[in-house]
Amino acid sequence: MEEPTIQLAYALDTFYFLISGALVMWMAAGFSMLEAGLVRAKNTAEILTKNVALFSIASIMYMVIGYGIMYPSGGNGIIPSINWTFMFGGDNSVEEVLAGDAYYSGMSDFFFQVVFVATAMSIVSGAVAERMRLWAFLLFAVIMTGFIYPVQGYWKWGGGFLDGLNFQDFAGSGIVHLCGASAALAGVLLLGARKGKYGKDGSINAIPGANMPLATLGTFILWLGWFGFNGGSQLIVSNISDANAVAAVFVNTNMAAAGGLVFALITARLIFGKADLTMALNGALAGLVAITAEPLTPTPLAATLIGGVGGIIVVFSIIALDKLRIDDPVGAISVHGVVGMWGLVAVPITNADAGIVPQLIGLVTIFAWVFITSLIVWLLIKLIMGIRVSEEEEYEGVDLGECGLEAYPEFVGSRGAGT
Amino acid sequence: MEEPTIQLAYALDTFYFLISGALVMWMAAGFSMLEAGLVRAKNTAEILTKNVALFSIASIMYMVIGYGIMYPSGGNGIIPSINWTFMFGGDNSVEEVLAGDAYYSGMSDFFFQVVFVATAMSIVSGAVAERMRLWAFLLFAVIMTGFIYPVQGYWKWGGGFLDGLNFQDFAGSGIVHLCGASAALAGVLLLGARKGKYGKDGSINAIPGANMPLATLGTFILWLGWFGFNGGSQLIVSNISDANAVAAVFVNTNMAAAGGLVFALITARLIFGKADLTMALNGALAGLVAITAEPLTPTPLAATLIGGVGGIIVVFSIIALDKLRIDDPVGAISVHGVVGMWGLVAVPITNADAGIVPQLIGLVTIFAWVFITSLIVWLLIKLIMGIRVSEEEEYEGVDLGECGLEAYPEFVGSRGAGT
Amino acid sequence: MEEPTIQLAYALDTFYFLISGALVMWMAAGFSMLEAGLVRAKNTAEILTKNVALFSIASIMYMVIGYGIMYPSGGNGIIPSINWTFMFGGDNSVEEVLAGDAYYSGMSDFFFQVVFVATAMSIVSGAVAERMRLWAFLLFAVIMTGFIYPVQGYWKWGGGFLDGLNFQDFAGSGIVHLCGASAALAGVLLLGARKGKYGKDGSINAIPGANMPLATLGTFILWLGWFGFNGGSQLIVSNISDANAVAAVFVNTNMAAAGGLVFALITARLIFGKADLTMALNGALAGLVAITAEPLTPTPLAATLIGGVGGIIVVFSIIALDKLRIDDPVGAISVHGVVGMWGLVAVPITNADAGIVPQLIGLVTIFAWVFITSLIVWLLIKLIMGIRVSEEEEYEGVDLGECGLEAYPEFVGSRGAGT
Repeated sequence: MEEPTIQLAYALDTFYFLISGALVMWMAAGFSMLEAGLVRAKNTAEILTKNVALFSIASIMYMVIGYGIMYPSGGNGIIPSINWTFMFGGDNSVEEVLAGDAYYSGMSDFFFQVVFVATAMSIVSGAVAERMRLWAFLLFAVIMTGFIYPVQGYWKWGGGFLDGLNFQDFAGSGIVHLCGASAALAGVLLLGARKGKYGKDGSINAIPGANMPLATLGTFILWLGWFGFNGGSQLIVSNISDANAVAAVFVNTNMAAAGGLVFALITARLIFGKADLTMALNGALAGLVAITAEPLTPTPLAATLIGGVGGIIVVFSIIALDKLRIDDPVGAISVHGVVGMWGLVAVPITNADAGIVPQLIGLVTIFAWVFITSLIVWLLIKLIMGIRVSEEEEYEGVDLGECGLEAYPEFVGSRGAGT
Repeated sequence: MEEPTIQLAYALDTFYFLISGALVMWMAAGFSMLEAGLVRAKNTAEILTKNVALFSIASIMYMVIGYGIMYPSGGNGIIPSINWTFMFGGDNSVEEVLAGDAYYSGMSDFFFQVVFVATAMSIVSGAVAERMRLWAFLLFAVIMTGFIYPVQGYWKWGGGFLDGLNFQDFAGSGIVHLCGASAALAGVLLLGARKGKYGKDGSINAIPGANMPLATLGTFILWLGWFGFNGGSQLIVSNISDANAVAAVFVNTNMAAAGGLVFALITARLIFGKADLTMALNGALAGLVAITAEPLTPTPLAATLIGGVGGIIVVFSIIALDKLRIDDPVGAISVHGVVGMWGLVAVPITNADAGIVPQLIGLVTIFAWVFITSLIVWLLIKLIMGIRVSEEEEYEGVDLGECGLEAYPEFVGSRGAGT
Repeated sequence: MEEPTIQLAYALDTFYFLISGALVMWMAAGFSMLEAGLVRAKNTAEILTKNVALFSIASIMYMVIGYGIMYPSGGNGIIPSINWTFMFGGDNSVEEVLAGDAYYSGMSDFFFQVVFVATAMSIVSGAVAERMRLWAFLLFAVIMTGFIYPVQGYWKWGGGFLDGLNFQDFAGSGIVHLCGASAALAGVLLLGARKGKYGKDGSINAIPGANMPLATLGTFILWLGWFGFNGGSQLIVSNISDANAVAAVFVNTNMAAAGGLVFALITARLIFGKADLTMALNGALAGLVAITAEPLTPTPLAATLIGGVGGIIVVFSIIALDKLRIDDPVGAISVHGVVGMWGLVAVPITNADAGIVPQLIGLVTIFAWVFITSLIVWLLIKLIMGIRVSEEEEYEGVDLGECGLEAYPEFVGSRGAGT
């Protein structure tokens, strides 16, 4: 290509990366609204605080060290050699680009990557909602976004051993979603269920979320943001083939969400006899998680079905986790973990270059690494400062105890204690 | 052009289409929030469920058949020959593009089109809110998005007889907005008004929406999404003339919304003596609907006035429909139908290539086709399963009856029954 | 460059400008939600009405006259010669572009600029919330967006005397944020505090906002929109250097917000003993305001710290203004004014081409011009129609008095009068 064409292609790909990243950043708002809608009023300000703070912590930790672990200066495929230079800036020179050494701005790459870390961490906040101490959570966020996530990210996207084994994960059903859910599961197991969730007689009590429009808004935001999440993961858009690929990813992402929602809505209708909005929303998210490992190779019809299966799985998974007394207020472990696994194993159905064995190796590796390291970190935090709020604070609501304010001071007559 | 330039132009146009489509998809969230804000608390979860489900149904039905009807493999201008291939994927080859046969990805075209169908269907949900059965509505959505909408879409955008008659509708004041409103009107007429809306003594009772910030958020989302809706409808951005055109469309779209809001706010102030927020929001939407038929040829000043007239019309239309006892909880028929007609007939004011006769033919055709077919479908659904919830369910709120949950379980002391 | 390349570059830059502008337009929704969340329920519909109306007024006034003042046909550096042609449309011809006279659509430039005016005006509405008369506010908006803002905008961005003095303000810490805050301060001083905010015994009473999820959503919207605000202010993206610059701006904007949030959260924790969500949100916004004067030259680490200092400043500023009995319900004067000043003086830290003297001259000029002219306008409006609602209306809530409706008619048992 001529120089002006190279310059234009570089500019277009950089711009595409930045817009994709902005859409993924927007997912942070989606998780916030989803989680704020699905908890009780008395715990809403605290979950909002966790969400805005975790995004900020993720941005800072990934800048300081995480990005340098995930895309290191070297490494043996398992242990990376940390690259510490990013925080001091710098980007590709014009000469490097014209020589064909770079196709988009390095800064735009960081921007796209950093919002992924925040996504993984956002998954955790929902699962541990309504009973985990705020500062314990934020401390975990520091380790998760600066160390646990980047190491397994390196193993695949940074060119580590999972990449060498031909493990396929286009935009991160495993590296982002299963990763977040595995960390969440470790936290939930240590933390225990919310008071009143499970009766001593084996009963399971529904604890309805306080604000369904917020939860729905959050789902729509995530749906929109996912076009950046999956669409940006093609990395390049500036030629016919890549542009077609990005377009196919957009279509398939949308179809999978639609399939997930419809199948979850029908499944919930058959089981519960009602059109359960919460299940429908989780169905859409499940469809999105399911397609994330391979949004490029399926036909639109196949994408609808892959998402649809995700929508069915998520309903049964949420029911099953409740039976196991694993208390996940927003269903994050089911949506991102269980369906994330489905997404990984579904890749070979439409992608002939993928194999079920590498997919299972990747799945087990990510789960084992994240679950075990998270469990250790949660345990250490528990020893140092405790991870669960007091019974009294849980009863009163964590908003007053942790944040010193209420989310809806005028709407809730009593503080809804006990409900 | 040289090959690299063709590749870049194709990539830029595809990316522009995808981003425009993502903005239009975001309008689904806008309709959801607008409608959720304008209904009563007890009917909020159900309207949210309808909105997320209709978007999913529209995506699936349009993929399976709607797109193949609207952009068929052939047809006589009235009856298209359905193209069934889309669901199996495929896109332009590099050779086809280099030969000048395609300017953007076919997948990106579908993505842009599919979110338009959902927009048309979203218009319906608001008008029939608070009393229509959920599954009856979703069944209608299947027929509307898979058949009724695509057929009239074919008549203009698919190259059918309305296109041959020089009917002009840039982004769909008629094909999308009037279409949605016509289907809504048919439903509303069959369904009847909400209990308590109109007294036996001829009185009209205001039924205030439960959540004005949500309604305002929804309006802002729609305003933002409309830049994709109108801006993307130029189809191409990759040269100076088209880029200028897209920019003019963005400016005019914004000016029309601003004009609509200001004129509606002043009109409402003169009539009611107060700065009625609901009317202001409907004024902005009316401005947007009005400019949608021709956002390119007006000057910014003319766009402001075209939108402004829309803002005046919508206030009087909402008052008039109430006098006719046509109960439309969110004003959708006025905003999208009555003002959609204004948008169509306003085209010749600024576009010398348009004529009032073709505009009226298009207007009547779209209204007649959509209203009559919708009436038949609603009637059939009424016969098969009924379209209206029971009096008791309406009194209790459709959320509990249809969805088995409440949208705001902690905020509303009593369930607000009867209000 | 060859003609096709010039055409493509023009198209890409125009598209980038339009998308950036759409993101900034979205900030109007952010301010609306932020302010609606931070006022009491009884004043919510009115603040929403102000926000949607001010955006519309800004669009119309800037089209009619403001843009022609800010980018005039001529002028002596202080007084511009108004260009009245914009409202009648027109854009660069193909010949002008190919001759190298324009790099992007003039319409896209207007679109980007007009949303900046609205941003400046949005800052005002929050500070005067809960007690200013609606129509007095809207009248001020007419003067502010048609005259006060454009004049100081001309002095820098239109090539006036501040530009000649080498005053640096990349995206408007001064021209937009300090400008808005200065107008707000003038209004607040004339208006006085809300009833009950400051006791006669010197006590300061917290008046909590009614809806924290809305305030959080508003902050996320602003955070997202800021990528367009700062990112678009590079003006060009279509070559390697500019693409790198835009990417650096995105990264630094995000890092500053993250730094501001974390530092404000920790500062609030140390002072109040709680993780104050409101302070965290204001910290993020402070970080964004701080980096806006120079988001390009800092390293990511420096951007984090510049934002972080903003986050610390905002906490102390909010406390200090309360001690001075300057009642700003949403903290807008601190976030946009005080931190805007910090942003201006911080420019020379990382930008060797800037000097502290020009920065201070710019700061004082903007503040003096906007504060004095605003004070005069507010005073005139006070004389003509009054600016403050009656005591009774303030007690009852301005929603009923000004808008004739309630924002949450079903959620608040009593109207929360007096709280």
